[in-house]
Amino acid sequence: MNQTARLLITCSDKPGIVASVTSFLYSHGANITALDQHSTDAEGGAFFMRLEFTTPHLNVSRAALEQSFQDVVAGRFSMTWRIAYAADLKSVAVLVSGHDHCLLELLWRHSRGELPCEIALVVSNHPALRDQVERFDTRFVHLPVTPQTKDQAEEALLETLGDRIDLLVLARYMQILSPRVVSRFSDRIINIHHSFLPAFAGADPYRQAHERGVKIVGATAHYVTEQLDAGPIIGQDIARVSHRQSVEDLKEIGRDLERQVLARAVRAHLEDRIIITGNKTVVF
Amino acid sequence: MNQTARLLITCSDKPGIVASVTSFLYSHGANITALDQHSTDAEGGAFFMRLEFTTPHLNVSRAALEQSFQDVVAGRFSMTWRIAYAADLKSVAVLVSGHDHCLLELLWRHSRGELPCEIALVVSNHPALRDQVERFDTRFVHLPVTPQTKDQAEEALLETLGDRIDLLVLARYMQILSPRVVSRFSDRIINIHHSFLPAFAGADPYRQAHERGVKIVGATAHYVTEQLDAGPIIGQDIARVSHRQSVEDLKEIGRDLERQVLARAVRAHLEDRIIITGNKTVVF
Amino acid sequence: MNQTARLLITCSDKPGIVASVTSFLYSHGANITALDQHSTDAEGGAFFMRLEFTTPHLNVSRAALEQSFQDVVAGRFSMTWRIAYAADLKSVAVLVSGHDHCLLELLWRHSRGELPCEIALVVSNHPALRDQVERFDTRFVHLPVTPQTKDQAEEALLETLGDRIDLLVLARYMQILSPRVVSRFSDRIINIHHSFLPAFAGADPYRQAHERGVKIVGATAHYVTEQLDAGPIIGQDIARVSHRQSVEDLKEIGRDLERQVLARAVRAHLEDRIIITGNKTVVF
Amino acid sequence: MNQTARLLITCSDKPGIVASVTSFLYSHGANITALDQHSTDAEGGAFFMRLEFTTPHLNVSRAALEQSFQDVVAGRFSMTWRIAYAADLKSVAVLVSGHDHCLLELLWRHSRGELPCEIALVVSNHPALRDQVERFDTRFVHLPVTPQTKDQAEEALLETLGDRIDLLVLARYMQILSPRVVSRFSDRIINIHHSFLPAFAGADPYRQAHERGVKIVGATAHYVTEQLDAGPIIGQDIARVSHRQSVEDLKEIGRDLERQVLARAVRAHLEDRIIITGNKTVVF
Repeated sequence: MNQTARLLITCSDKPGIVASVTSFLYSHGANITALDQHSTDAEGGAFFMRLEFTTPHLNVSRAALEQSFQDVVAGRFSMTWRIAYAADLKSVAVLVSGHDHCLLELLWRHSRGELPCEIALVVSNHPALRDQVERFDTRFVHLPVTPQTKDQAEEALLETLGDRIDLLVLARYMQILSPRVVSRFSDRIINIHHSFLPAFAGADPYRQAHERGVKIVGATAHYVTEQLDAGPIIGQDIARVSHRQSVEDLKEIGRDLERQVLARAVRAHLEDRIIITGNKTVVF
Repeated sequence: MNQTARLLITCSDKPGIVASVTSFLYSHGANITALDQHSTDAEGGAFFMRLEFTTPHLNVSRAALEQSFQDVVAGRFSMTWRIAYAADLKSVAVLVSGHDHCLLELLWRHSRGELPCEIALVVSNHPALRDQVERFDTRFVHLPVTPQTKDQAEEALLETLGDRIDLLVLARYMQILSPRVVSRFSDRIINIHHSFLPAFAGADPYRQAHERGVKIVGATAHYVTEQLDAGPIIGQDIARVSHRQSVEDLKEIGRDLERQVLARAVRAHLEDRIIITGNKTVVF
Repeated sequence: MNQTARLLITCSDKPGIVASVTSFLYSHGANITALDQHSTDAEGGAFFMRLEFTTPHLNVSRAALEQSFQDVVAGRFSMTWRIAYAADLKSVAVLVSGHDHCLLELLWRHSRGELPCEIALVVSNHPALRDQVERFDTRFVHLPVTPQTKDQAEEALLETLGDRIDLLVLARYMQILSPRVVSRFSDRIINIHHSFLPAFAGADPYRQAHERGVKIVGATAHYVTEQLDAGPIIGQDIARVSHRQSVEDLKEIGRDLERQVLARAVRAHLEDRIIITGNKTVVF
Repeated sequence: MNQTARLLITCSDKPGIVASVTSFLYSHGANITALDQHSTDAEGGAFFMRLEFTTPHLNVSRAALEQSFQDVVAGRFSMTWRIAYAADLKSVAVLVSGHDHCLLELLWRHSRGELPCEIALVVSNHPALRDQVERFDTRFVHLPVTPQTKDQAEEALLETLGDRIDLLVLARYMQILSPRVVSRFSDRIINIHHSFLPAFAGADPYRQAHERGVKIVGATAHYVTEQLDAGPIIGQDIARVSHRQSVEDLKEIGRDLERQVLARAVRAHLEDRIIITGNKTVVF
């Protein structure tokens, strides 16, 4: 794992891309272990690619590899690209309010080694979850938010997060982040919404679902943008319900969905499987 | 099957309902073979019940049974109720435009004995499906509709349907029915909408879904009301998709969903399993 | 909840059962809040019934109600029956070996109020999970088992369990219980098997599944009988897999299945929703 | 579509394969439109690859391209490989007994353009389905089989099939093919088994499932080998059931599964998405 790197590429599709990229990696001693590509149209559409390669036999430094890739391949095809190294564990901050189920699922999976990251801290606007978080030897910060103190609270949040956070996970965080925070962590905030988006955006989606009488409820993990519940969708899952379920029942059923959907989305991000394109995602 | 009857009840919940209903049926020689009930709240909520019973040992006529039930039980509990007899096959008209998949699924299942009804006729605003329908020995009527002739076309439709149709099934019928038709067949028109309602109501839902980048698509069978795509939902199903699917792919995947969801909803209606309550359904 | 009781009935089907049972309950002031029934054949088949009723207006004691039910109703129809009172929380013992995921799911759900029981203790043949269990304020007992000490270990187990345990949950317990333990807790031991039974019974089912090249893996919760992995099935669930998953991947995917399937089965048992009939279950 | 080709490769994994293959195709004017690969172990495991490429700009003939690929790439890596051209529609024979649902699903999907093949003929040991087949303008051959005439019937079958059939689809064909037929169409016979294999192999799987009391039933499409129901699995799907379903109900639910699973498997074969490896499949 520690010698694995991932190359993510977006560009216009034209002949020769795959040959150029794979030949480049081969010539530098990188051994490709996984390769996914997607093209919206072979003649001039958008092209997306994810390669996983191992680096033990690399014949150059990381910096030299990246510089050379830009010069030899990426420039020629006008690629947007990045290489992520599995050894550089991403640093994650989890934001949470009163509901503990998504948070605990993340902490539990992390403790089992299922989430390749460092959970740097958990921030909550409620103090109640401190004990549960600290049991996992994870730092807990209580930052109260009131309508009057929203601005200062966000200031404190940004300060607490500092410069080293790679990913913000909103694990049922009930505060709306200001554009300032969203733009600071652009494409790096994952939220779990407790409905099958775009149905039932906004508040109290299980109540909305119950009132509409749907026969299936869902949960959606998505990147946060300035438009509420409208960012690029990463993953969704559903459960069947019937007239028998009350709003409370839907919430309980939904908890299991939310836990799974959020954990899978966070993992896909941590494994560099996601490319954002416009308001959508490619998840390899 | 021919000696099966179904009793559907809606009333306010209070003690003694089940005992009264089942004792009444027992005393008249009806043998209960299935019983479902649902209460939104045991103390004064809404109460729903479906009983299936066999009638070979009935000691009274249908008319006497029903009159007696009203006098002895239903009046006391202020019930809304009806009895349906399986031997009285419902008469169904299917409305369709250019897409044949839902129509053929219904015809095929009917021919296998999976849909207990008589398919009286198929009406289409296109002539193309005549041959396929007539192969099933089913009457096909072509009623063209243009923006200019919409009123006359509806007139002709109502005349063609006549007085004997119990259920209208919109098997991808692309015309919006006027309030006049909807109210004439109130609670007796089933539509298949090719999205997971309430997401993507209206036109071209697969294109909408593709543009939003959802990871799951769906289909919804619902009763038609005067508000477009907003009537009581009967059933829904979904399929997982990814960035790889084009709009055309979604349509193809959707066809399989639509076929199944519509066929199941029609069958539930034909077996008298559905009680409409407000804008929702109880499906026993 | 505390005033809820459940009546479970098995007998031969014949006319009048539902009327008799519901009239009896009504006459004693019990308000039926849920009713499910199932008949394998209306003319002489097996009949199963579950009623949930509230007892605040009961006009007799529990003992008198039960005696009267036997005298007035159950005797007449030769019923096997029992009444369970939700206020009498069942006492559960969880047996576990090295894998913690099923155990933690049960403890977590119990702490959230999703499992109506008392978890009296956790017994493990490994010491490793003591800390995790005690964090939930739950008693942990380490009972080592070796091939040489199996008999004494079972003796110690029976002694530790004592007389007050209503349900034994094998949450990935890797020891085979002797017939002596199984018969002592007959119909009251739930096991989670990590395959879609009856496929891949026995050891290492994920390896078996990988070798067979299945495209779906599963998990099965069942009651334990003397025949290994062959007892009545309570619930099953599945996940799709492909050639891409290694045995280790299957184990990880399977963990999520096992957690959910076991938790749901235990809950169904605790809510008195299960009637065992031969080697099958009716789960209402 | 007509200018699409697919290259399928199996070899030992070692560095440079992807670069060599894609560079070769690029240098001959082939434009790669899809690429999937799978490696069981990057250091010496088995390597599988499927490329889809368009040929309008090919600068050599098919024969020259293939000869050159063998000389320049395949030989070097000891590859097993083949190129399939979408324009060369595969010729399919469907074998069926009394159940029509799988057959009709295939004919219907073929008529909609969802199955890229020519359905050369349908062979049945019963005469009943002739009309339904001929409605699709498809040749129907009735070849009766009795225990006494099994050998001659197989002789007649092989003669009827002739030399031009690429794929045999057993759409609920209730006769066991002899090793002679199986080896003649090695890796080119797809069967639908009406259970979730390896559970309930052999006869009457829905009855077996009902007796075991499973809570999920399934269907499995697989390649036929000389061992009954034990060949490489292509695809599987499931449906949830409960104590309420009789054996007849399971058969009806199963029909919908079988139709879908078989159609998807046949399509994957026709699109050259399947590589058989030992007793498993890689389905790209």
